[in-house]
Amino acid sequence: MPINKGFVLASRPRGEANVGNFRFFEAPAPQPGAGEVLVRHHYLSLDPYMRGRMDESRSYAASQKLDEVMIGGTVGEVVASNDSAFAVGDRVVGQGGWQLYSVACAADLRKLPAAKVPVQAFLGALGMPGVTAWHGVNRILEPRAEQTLVVSAATGAVGAVVGQLAKARGARVVGIAGGAEKCGYAVASLGFDACVDHRSPAFEADLAAATPQGIDRLFENVGGAPFRASFRRLNDFGRVAICGLIASYEGAAATTIDDMRLVLVRRLMVQGFIVMDHMEDWPRAIAELAALAESGRLTWRESVAQGIESAPEAFFGMLKGRNFGKQLVRLI
Amino acid sequence: MPINKGFVLASRPRGEANVGNFRFFEAPAPQPGAGEVLVRHHYLSLDPYMRGRMDESRSYAASQKLDEVMIGGTVGEVVASNDSAFAVGDRVVGQGGWQLYSVACAADLRKLPAAKVPVQAFLGALGMPGVTAWHGVNRILEPRAEQTLVVSAATGAVGAVVGQLAKARGARVVGIAGGAEKCGYAVASLGFDACVDHRSPAFEADLAAATPQGIDRLFENVGGAPFRASFRRLNDFGRVAICGLIASYEGAAATTIDDMRLVLVRRLMVQGFIVMDHMEDWPRAIAELAALAESGRLTWRESVAQGIESAPEAFFGMLKGRNFGKQLVRLI
Repeated sequence: MPINKGFVLASRPRGEANVGNFRFFEAPAPQPGAGEVLVRHHYLSLDPYMRGRMDESRSYAASQKLDEVMIGGTVGEVVASNDSAFAVGDRVVGQGGWQLYSVACAADLRKLPAAKVPVQAFLGALGMPGVTAWHGVNRILEPRAEQTLVVSAATGAVGAVVGQLAKARGARVVGIAGGAEKCGYAVASLGFDACVDHRSPAFEADLAAATPQGIDRLFENVGGAPFRASFRRLNDFGRVAICGLIASYEGAAATTIDDMRLVLVRRLMVQGFIVMDHMEDWPRAIAELAALAESGRLTWRESVAQGIESAPEAFFGMLKGRNFGKQLVRLI
Repeated sequence: MPINKGFVLASRPRGEANVGNFRFFEAPAPQPGAGEVLVRHHYLSLDPYMRGRMDESRSYAASQKLDEVMIGGTVGEVVASNDSAFAVGDRVVGQGGWQLYSVACAADLRKLPAAKVPVQAFLGALGMPGVTAWHGVNRILEPRAEQTLVVSAATGAVGAVVGQLAKARGARVVGIAGGAEKCGYAVASLGFDACVDHRSPAFEADLAAATPQGIDRLFENVGGAPFRASFRRLNDFGRVAICGLIASYEGAAATTIDDMRLVLVRRLMVQGFIVMDHMEDWPRAIAELAALAESGRLTWRESVAQGIESAPEAFFGMLKGRNFGKQLVRLI
């Protein structure tokens, strides 16, 4: 019987979340029941939405329950199966949580498609973050050629895909990211037209210089002061997809619209969305993203922490923007 | 040669607009040139958007020019014509402005349809305010049966039509209006399910009591604190049409969204709009509204000031909510 290790939510954050909110556990791996399979996780995905789940029902989904394993997307392989549809060795993506092993039924697992990409891509550009980007770009923002699209957290798991999809549609793409290294990567490797460092004291002037024709489409992942600055530069008939407001998750920076008259006089559209509401998009989105990746027109970067024990620290680093690209925990 | 009278914009407001911003004039009526007609106005429409035009290019349209006749919708009759398509006596709707007579070319005039309604209806429920309501309800909010729709300025030219169109779609309609008389009218005569007085000290509790299932659709005409209270009660997948923010036009009350996380976690859609962007909707909207009016299923009320000299005072009264229904100035 293999040993399972992981983290449960021990307490809800008061103010900023910290490692004390999690409790490490070590126990024999669970046994799959009838119709279930046991999965050995290879990678765990760390995502901003998890911070919302730690609070009591303030977010769109049910709260993470106390004393239960922290939720999280995982890729891994089947190591025991009581379901004829799954064989030992099958590679699967699921919601295994912050642990080495999980038991799941077929409805909660998806076999990995045969794309020529590393398995962990199905937690990133070909997974939930990629589909999030796809939905926001193709269903909400619909940028046209020559329009200026701005995306925050530009080198993150979602932002990098947003920019590349918008470039493929012919838009001018301007990223917002933290620091010169990320901004350089967005332009040199992701192909953005420009990227503005939100840590710069001249941020607003830099953003204006990078968006001389104003902003037509805004994909917002962060919120706070950079959001407000972007919002003020929106052109008539501008659209805003609110995908995440990570700057506000800890209550540190409010994300506000200070003058709704802009929404009226510029006829803006603002749409909040959650990719899990749009399961009908997933197959098409993943097929398109996989085709782009295999042909080299979709690239990404990963920050990989090693070992389940590193998950909390990696999670808090991501909330503070210390990751560079998709944040993963390697479990093998 | 008849005598024309009216008002030009004399100066731009600093802070709250006042009668000193207008200048009365009296002069011979203009002569129609080749292809033009002379129209004698019967009614002038007074609308909140005019306040925005008085400022320097802060609004969606070009500013009202100084020393030119204040813009405004008018209905009237042709009294001289140099265009074979118009005969003396034809009843027309146009943008004649705050004056008794205007000269226009055919492209800027529309003959009144043969609906059995008073001519001034084409400045209200069957005119720009009615089409505004129609577009917001049918193109943006799309309320479904059993959903709760809230509309502010509920007895105004736009709000009254919004509520009646939403009732026709089966929605539960709750108005917000100023004072017991307007609220009573919204329920008794317009058929709303409830109407809440925004002047009541218990407004928030009253709104909650009137919307026990929350708010699914919000048609916003006013802004300010009642808007914020309505916004907080929006349900998941709620939609908001921002049609006007009259409370903010004089800078007296800010209209803000204080926590954008609501937009994200409840997956809200907020859309600002201006009916003049959607000319393609006008024929269908007016035809549908006329059919409802002729069958008695669309009703409205008017506040009518007498004589062009009363226009400024009636205009400022409307901005303060002293009108009850569509604000008109009768010019005959």
